[in-house]
Amino acid sequence: MMPFHMPAYSIGLDLGGTNLRAAAIDRSGKILDKTSGATNFTEGREAVLSDIVAAIQKLRARHGATRLAGIGVGVPGFIRIQEGFITGSNNLPYLENFPVRDEIGRRLGTPVILENDANAAALGEKWMGAGREVDDLVLLTLGTGIGGGIISGGRVLRGYVGMAGELGHMTVVPNGNPCGCGNQGCLEKHASATAVVAMADMLHLGENLTSKDVCDIASRDDEAGEKARVIWRVMGESLGIALATLVNAFNFPLYLLSGGMLPAWEFFAPQMLRTVEQRSFTYRATKAGTRIAQATLGNEAGLYGAAYLPWIEK
Amino acid sequence: MMPFHMPAYSIGLDLGGTNLRAAAIDRSGKILDKTSGATNFTEGREAVLSDIVAAIQKLRARHGATRLAGIGVGVPGFIRIQEGFITGSNNLPYLENFPVRDEIGRRLGTPVILENDANAAALGEKWMGAGREVDDLVLLTLGTGIGGGIISGGRVLRGYVGMAGELGHMTVVPNGNPCGCGNQGCLEKHASATAVVAMADMLHLGENLTSKDVCDIASRDDEAGEKARVIWRVMGESLGIALATLVNAFNFPLYLLSGGMLPAWEFFAPQMLRTVEQRSFTYRATKAGTRIAQATLGNEAGLYGAAYLPWIEK
Repeated sequence: MMPFHMPAYSIGLDLGGTNLRAAAIDRSGKILDKTSGATNFTEGREAVLSDIVAAIQKLRARHGATRLAGIGVGVPGFIRIQEGFITGSNNLPYLENFPVRDEIGRRLGTPVILENDANAAALGEKWMGAGREVDDLVLLTLGTGIGGGIISGGRVLRGYVGMAGELGHMTVVPNGNPCGCGNQGCLEKHASATAVVAMADMLHLGENLTSKDVCDIASRDDEAGEKARVIWRVMGESLGIALATLVNAFNFPLYLLSGGMLPAWEFFAPQMLRTVEQRSFTYRATKAGTRIAQATLGNEAGLYGAAYLPWIEK
Repeated sequence: MMPFHMPAYSIGLDLGGTNLRAAAIDRSGKILDKTSGATNFTEGREAVLSDIVAAIQKLRARHGATRLAGIGVGVPGFIRIQEGFITGSNNLPYLENFPVRDEIGRRLGTPVILENDANAAALGEKWMGAGREVDDLVLLTLGTGIGGGIISGGRVLRGYVGMAGELGHMTVVPNGNPCGCGNQGCLEKHASATAVVAMADMLHLGENLTSKDVCDIASRDDEAGEKARVIWRVMGESLGIALATLVNAFNFPLYLLSGGMLPAWEFFAPQMLRTVEQRSFTYRATKAGTRIAQATLGNEAGLYGAAYLPWIEK
């Protein structure tokens, strides 16, 4: 039996491309409990839905349904917010055009809030991470692709169907690399881990490298090291072009970067910041108050953000 | 003496590069009265401040101070919203780093709200123009430069010092034409009237042409007409690149274009829309609900927006 003084809590779930994690978090941001699983995403819709529901049920059973303020679920892909559908998610094709939100809610017997994973991560950073002091921020998640989340007035800027914040598909090179979205020269085609690896391949740095390899090589004092440092500067410049446009558009106090490429920060950030400084009048005019910085919650940002949703959304 | 049944009203003032206009507008959006003047902007700060104050006083004297809900002033340039300063305005250099808002307020004996002219125009379109049905829109003003205004949740998205919405300085061509803002390839260097005229010059279409001339020539069935149509397609493509990024970032239902280049709509809009369609997954996925259209209030948008500010801002 739960003691009466236990605080209200919410459950956040983050459905990644390779695993699933969920946490029970109280209103103050304290993680009460966590669970995770390496779901085999190739097993299809029923397996993933069951795993999502089971993870939430497990936490709810442990912490009680009466104090549960709500449930937030972060998923990759574009979210059609009113219908509760996922669309354009390369990782979860079998959840396309299926009423994900309502089906999870039905199985749990209580409504859930669906949100894009990068939006959830941005909200998590606002709540408990690098964005705690501000109400307005932009987050770019640097992984195999690039996601974006925009927090405006303390809430996710969703747009009218929930697809806002697709900042990985900003055009940074009009005649640049073709992207699966139909565009050419998307930010994620020039600044993601995939782009870094492709550049490494083109510069004969080695085959089957990871972006971490390219980061390690950049420390070396040889020809390969020089090539790797050039790659990171080019990546930093592409990021800087996008960030300059974002600073000009939003004039927010904070722009955060997260994801698996942060270890290469020392190699790409100087060029990124030089590019923003050169290209954005607004950045130069507001430099004292405009920060471009690393996110601090790592993989947990999406969990925090998903759990925060029930506190601020209806 | 004012009859008691007269409605409350506000005063909006729009300080353009070549003239000054002000209007008394009631809460329903009805223009009760207007005044304008072709101020000689070369006469300096005192002349401009006096003219602003005189125009507002004239309307206030006619319609009564007791029913005056507030005063909004739209000006070109970046606005430091908390301090009430203008910065980076090429048209009004003598108002730089001067407490414009407070000085106008002091002379009038009542506070005024200062806003960037493109932000005010965007708000005007939301209140009484092409954006009446939505709460979220982006406006691009196509003139000698390109201004931008973002309306989110029915209000101007200002950013933390009031400089948000500088969409004319989005990068559309990373190695493109140098801009006074320090960037290269800004939207306004590739899609403004100035850019159209520069392209006409480069293509030997004629010297000292205006963008209206290039629009007229585009109707001709000869070599010059073909060149002019190419120019408008290139301009439309640059606009389309920027709009695709905006659609991906905001997922708003409405993107409006206004300004002196709208008469060339038939020549640039088809390529602009093709480019957005090709480059924005979000646009294709939300096409039924995403409109890219002409603004409808023309020169009056800024007046309406300035007058609307007192009703929605503190």
